[in-house]
Amino acid sequence: METHSDSAPMNGGNGAHSYSKNSFYQKQFADLVKDKIVEVISAKLDVKSPCSVSSVPFTLADLGCSVGPNTVIAMQNFMEAIKLKYQDQGPAHSQILPQFQVFFNDQVLNDFNTLFRSLPQDRQYFAAGVAGSFCGRLFPESSIHFVYSSTALHWLSRVPEELRDRNSAAWNKGRIHYTSAPDEVIKAYSAHFAKDMQIFFDDRAKEIVSGGMMVLIIPASDDKLPRSQDAFGITFNCMASSLMDMVKLGIIAEDEVDSFNIPMYCPCPNEMEEVIEKNGNFKIEKMESLLAASALKGRPINIPEWVAHVDARFRFSSIYDQDLCSINFTTTRRAAMEGNFTRHFGSENIVDEIFQRLTEKFIALSEGLEGTRKFSTSLLLVLKRK
Amino acid sequence: METHSDSAPMNGGNGAHSYSKNSFYQKQFADLVKDKIVEVISAKLDVKSPCSVSSVPFTLADLGCSVGPNTVIAMQNFMEAIKLKYQDQGPAHSQILPQFQVFFNDQVLNDFNTLFRSLPQDRQYFAAGVAGSFCGRLFPESSIHFVYSSTALHWLSRVPEELRDRNSAAWNKGRIHYTSAPDEVIKAYSAHFAKDMQIFFDDRAKEIVSGGMMVLIIPASDDKLPRSQDAFGITFNCMASSLMDMVKLGIIAEDEVDSFNIPMYCPCPNEMEEVIEKNGNFKIEKMESLLAASALKGRPINIPEWVAHVDARFRFSSIYDQDLCSINFTTTRRAAMEGNFTRHFGSENIVDEIFQRLTEKFIALSEGLEGTRKFSTSLLLVLKRK
Repeated sequence: METHSDSAPMNGGNGAHSYSKNSFYQKQFADLVKDKIVEVISAKLDVKSPCSVSSVPFTLADLGCSVGPNTVIAMQNFMEAIKLKYQDQGPAHSQILPQFQVFFNDQVLNDFNTLFRSLPQDRQYFAAGVAGSFCGRLFPESSIHFVYSSTALHWLSRVPEELRDRNSAAWNKGRIHYTSAPDEVIKAYSAHFAKDMQIFFDDRAKEIVSGGMMVLIIPASDDKLPRSQDAFGITFNCMASSLMDMVKLGIIAEDEVDSFNIPMYCPCPNEMEEVIEKNGNFKIEKMESLLAASALKGRPINIPEWVAHVDARFRFSSIYDQDLCSINFTTTRRAAMEGNFTRHFGSENIVDEIFQRLTEKFIALSEGLEGTRKFSTSLLLVLKRK
Repeated sequence: METHSDSAPMNGGNGAHSYSKNSFYQKQFADLVKDKIVEVISAKLDVKSPCSVSSVPFTLADLGCSVGPNTVIAMQNFMEAIKLKYQDQGPAHSQILPQFQVFFNDQVLNDFNTLFRSLPQDRQYFAAGVAGSFCGRLFPESSIHFVYSSTALHWLSRVPEELRDRNSAAWNKGRIHYTSAPDEVIKAYSAHFAKDMQIFFDDRAKEIVSGGMMVLIIPASDDKLPRSQDAFGITFNCMASSLMDMVKLGIIAEDEVDSFNIPMYCPCPNEMEEVIEKNGNFKIEKMESLLAASALKGRPINIPEWVAHVDARFRFSSIYDQDLCSINFTTTRRAAMEGNFTRHFGSENIVDEIFQRLTEKFIALSEGLEGTRKFSTSLLLVLKRK
């Protein structure tokens, strides 16, 4: 039932390079959107349908949950908001508050052991882990009421086929991503993303009850900013440049770099909208750039603050925040991405060296980029199953 | 929602001492009861209730599933039998064959990573892992149709309280189990088992739909055989004796042995019956000793064969089967029980020595016991939620 995945999971366990010890940026990010999602649940969630039958549990799923603790905090927040929504319907609804069941999903190679051990013992919901790619079926038909997925959908199910072909115009020589690449490479990535999303929305359409809600947070590209100048672009260019330095020193072969590509795509907002409308199973209840949202709330846009919040997994905290040194920054990146490098380059020493060189590149870049205020943004999408 | 557990999980991973590499005995055992359970499903399973609504998935749970592969094979077998039962109802029922969802449950410290990685990619059911003690709630109300639990219920939720008290008559000096112990020790174990079972059956009564089925396989004691002479008894006496040898040599302290007790209880058949009737939520559809069942099928009782099959986790294959050497036998025991020793005695060297000495005891015993044909038996229980 599951498709093969080229994306490696976040680093497991609790060690120095683990995701569980290096995901506090993502936590800050979750905190930032928490109020927004609670507000959406209050305004848009339909609590009159299936769960008014009290024996049917209200089921939530986090797709791409990684190992915690962020997923645990987020799901707890949403559950509380859903309870409030029930209680707001008046005393009759409060009395039939449903039971809650939370499904934590991630790839088969995710470290579920660490996740299960981090679940609070006094939790007020039934928890289950589901291992498998979300580009594939995960749950029985019409069995899920609320789906959440944060900074996970931008991981492609695999590297686009064309990039594996040395004779294709999309052969990505000297690069590891579509950043600064020819159009053919960008198109191959974009087409693969669209294909993945069709599968994703088709499968979720089967699993989510009519009226059920889906909240997605997706690292996105800015239509107006060249991709090479956003945080992702700069990251991937630094990585490619570190690797090419290692080629020059004879540490790795050039072919190894040419054939290595990070399976990650950040869509533009209109691209995402198109994909959802083409699929046709979900109504867009809300779609906003998180950066714009902050401005709308009457707060001035504080770029350093935003860079410290928005898709922290790939941002340049070291550029703006003197308290967060580049080494910490690289460690965060490493917790999220090391698996991809290890799979391809194999040797642990080589992977150590890649991230060591990356740190140096970031330090050098920090000074040069201090004033440029480049950043990536994310899309918040709230969808309802038609 | 979960209770603390004193029972350590089976050894994880795929290494030399792992449960996944050392559970082929349990597999033989599962094969032996497979036909019996398939027969029971065909005769007794109620397929007219909730799942005739085709959108409701048929849910199966294996409680105490460990890391596989046995649980995967067993659940696949049961699912096939349930499908057949549906198809036997005639063409109308075949058309509304339900979706299947299988919940794999074990303790929080179980190695779910290994389990998830061993699930077949082409499985025809939705799989989920649920971490927590089965002496506690695991699933929403009325959400499970079929529960299976094999050689797991004999693990107590914890060592009985009285055994922790140096001044109690149940202080278990020089022993690690109730085998060959004073009545007070046996009573403390038996009372704790009864208490655990009340919680177990109360919780399952909430979770299993009316008419739902529960199949339990429980290592049991024989009313007519002194406990010190069955396979469990001999095992635990050998273990205690190995530990006391190490006390004499000054390797471990006597107090460490006195305060160490294996949280495991094998009930007599009538004891089990009493517990279920006292609970009152389940009807006993079938209860039989697997040994007696073999005789009833017209086959002569072949003791060596039985000992090679029945509750293989603790049996003396080395006594009867020349092909299975004592070292393999100890490895099987180690995969299932090492965790309990490691928790208490800490050092890996000491645990290595314990199992080394145990092998030697078994080799010595094998010869002496060759003709005695002691064995343990198991109870097969088929229950229906009233």
